[in-house]
Amino acid sequence: MREFKRLTPYREALSLLLNDLDEIPEVEEVPLDEAAGRVLAEDVVSPVDSPPFDRAAVDGYAVRAEDTFPAREYRPVELRVIDEVPTGSESGKVVEPGTAVKLLTGVKMPDGANAVLMQEMAEREGGIIRVLRPVAPGQNVAMKGEDVRKGQTILRKGQILRPQDLAILKSIGFTSVMVKRKPRVGIIVTGSELIEGFNEEALKHGKIIESNSIMLKTLVRQYFGEPRFYGVLPDDEVKIGEAIKKARSENDLVLVTGGSAFGDMDFAHRFVEPLFHGTTIKPGRPIGYGERTFVMSGYPVAVFAQFQLYVKHALAKLVGARNYEVRVKARLTERVPSQLGRYEFVKVWYKDGKARPIKKKGSGIISSLVESNGYIEIPEDSEGYLEGEEVEVTLYS
Amino acid sequence: MREFKRLTPYREALSLLLNDLDEIPEVEEVPLDEAAGRVLAEDVVSPVDSPPFDRAAVDGYAVRAEDTFPAREYRPVELRVIDEVPTGSESGKVVEPGTAVKLLTGVKMPDGANAVLMQEMAEREGGIIRVLRPVAPGQNVAMKGEDVRKGQTILRKGQILRPQDLAILKSIGFTSVMVKRKPRVGIIVTGSELIEGFNEEALKHGKIIESNSIMLKTLVRQYFGEPRFYGVLPDDEVKIGEAIKKARSENDLVLVTGGSAFGDMDFAHRFVEPLFHGTTIKPGRPIGYGERTFVMSGYPVAVFAQFQLYVKHALAKLVGARNYEVRVKARLTERVPSQLGRYEFVKVWYKDGKARPIKKKGSGIISSLVESNGYIEIPEDSEGYLEGEEVEVTLYS
Repeated sequence: MREFKRLTPYREALSLLLNDLDEIPEVEEVPLDEAAGRVLAEDVVSPVDSPPFDRAAVDGYAVRAEDTFPAREYRPVELRVIDEVPTGSESGKVVEPGTAVKLLTGVKMPDGANAVLMQEMAEREGGIIRVLRPVAPGQNVAMKGEDVRKGQTILRKGQILRPQDLAILKSIGFTSVMVKRKPRVGIIVTGSELIEGFNEEALKHGKIIESNSIMLKTLVRQYFGEPRFYGVLPDDEVKIGEAIKKARSENDLVLVTGGSAFGDMDFAHRFVEPLFHGTTIKPGRPIGYGERTFVMSGYPVAVFAQFQLYVKHALAKLVGARNYEVRVKARLTERVPSQLGRYEFVKVWYKDGKARPIKKKGSGIISSLVESNGYIEIPEDSEGYLEGEEVEVTLYS
Repeated sequence: MREFKRLTPYREALSLLLNDLDEIPEVEEVPLDEAAGRVLAEDVVSPVDSPPFDRAAVDGYAVRAEDTFPAREYRPVELRVIDEVPTGSESGKVVEPGTAVKLLTGVKMPDGANAVLMQEMAEREGGIIRVLRPVAPGQNVAMKGEDVRKGQTILRKGQILRPQDLAILKSIGFTSVMVKRKPRVGIIVTGSELIEGFNEEALKHGKIIESNSIMLKTLVRQYFGEPRFYGVLPDDEVKIGEAIKKARSENDLVLVTGGSAFGDMDFAHRFVEPLFHGTTIKPGRPIGYGERTFVMSGYPVAVFAQFQLYVKHALAKLVGARNYEVRVKARLTERVPSQLGRYEFVKVWYKDGKARPIKKKGSGIISSLVESNGYIEIPEDSEGYLEGEEVEVTLYS
């Protein structure tokens, strides 16, 4: 049996991968209501000021602040109320010295006024208010452009759009937004031992239900992509070769599970001119990549690690996404040993600033993924971490 | 102008809210491929062992471990190869003393064998292998049920389904899964100053583009719900009353923005028999809740805070979701003062174990939400936190 002559160090392989991929040029215009989770394709510069005018921040009276400077509780200043403006309307009047306009929160400031006196700070008697305390210029006024100024860059290319990002876009007049096209990702699952669903007889006689397809489809969707499933194939060199060729012609990226090692029946890697094949990661060492095609392990845990360590970053590169990972600091609840020369992917349960390593080993143990909510990475030159040591956890979500 | 007679402390109001809501009883069966992000409606107990049989964990030879005990490099043990099994097949033969069966990774162990000798550890000559080193019983064998045992609870009710959860379900034969029905959430935006989209003339004369609808719709979807938008209404008591009544009859929860304070034009709260109205949170103090209806602020930042502090938890209660928040420990990059008696919602940017408070104030400043990726909460009895103090950040994602 052949073995890998050399394992490419993790970061070296990652660099080769990311240098090999170009950002997808195509963009799509989508309505704001469908844009959550999509990746912004360009910087957004505001065409307007928001708010578009100075407005009252409280219910009260628009005044000239100077008029109120002498006001004291024992010596009120009297102002004449020349208008009353309901919400969503505006006053046609100008606030001249000695006058005031009654308005509600959010109403546009009338010309001449530069402050709002809170309703509770004035005593009203017919058309006159008695001002008990001075207000400063600008007080209780939300200034034009205080949220967003015209010409200001409010969101940057690569932003993964969140509820508040869509809100700010809507507030400055957008109804749609330019986002990156979703990368199309072909998924091929190989292995003669695999069946697609429950079959009691088959399971008694050496078959296994494959679960890589649903896992990869869901992960691809989580990281901006559109998965396309090309089925479960037996270990048949011709069929696998044809599927890879077809998937490659129809997608930006292809993920093949199974056939990455050098076993007699490992065919998939033969159809890829590799940039790397075999890296220092553990689990998932036999991963190969070339020609926009990942040849991944058959075992689900190895596939998951390969996705997190390589495929996720490839997808982010294709759409130019920023801040697509949540990385947090944590202290280990116990020691995690690691093999020198291996870049270890260690599943953990993160909670309250602590990371508890999941001890279940084995690339087939999907329950170890279920019991974890993130992972730590241990570089090749480390023998692991001590109990209580601070580590960086990448959360799955 | 009336003011709140008493502000209900944050946690007291939250308890009133959560006690008022019952978990939605309805469940739905959805295909695994559509179940990501949905909330599991019941514990899942595995009906089978996975893997369903002992299988080879490496390519090699199934042997009786005892036969290999005397093997040394200078004194190999010879075994007769009685069968060769490709992946996905099984051997009909029994491994008797002195014999071995060649198999590939993942193949079911033949009867009689209890260990797998790695291919590289044997020298093959025709129908004979020479074993150079002993193997232990169980070595290189993935045991039946080592991932999931029959009868084991693999996922618990309330789990938000992730890629690996769907994979484990598929691996034990599921094709669909029972999840909670999505809570239906009616959204009503009120305010005579609001328009739905860009209109230059209107914006010059006191109108504002509303952005609460897109923000709330997207937040509701993020937290398991199905939003239904009832439009932007002017400050018209009759129209608002009718909309609330209709939305309440068609939804599990209703969110109304605007009209929660006691201004002359604040109508919405008049249609709710409140469990609480006015709480200690800042921003967002005037929030009211009763009869499955939230009366929220008009300003986007206050609405966002009210959603995070109350509505999110209400939605999680409706579906019984667990682990729906990502909370991390962080050190403040600077001091954050807080007013005694107020439960402050402070936006922060979390990165690398540090939380940087976003200083922009004002309930209308949506850009302060855009610049943050999480928040900290400062209870009523705290005057705030010092620079470098450890705090808990709730991330938006």
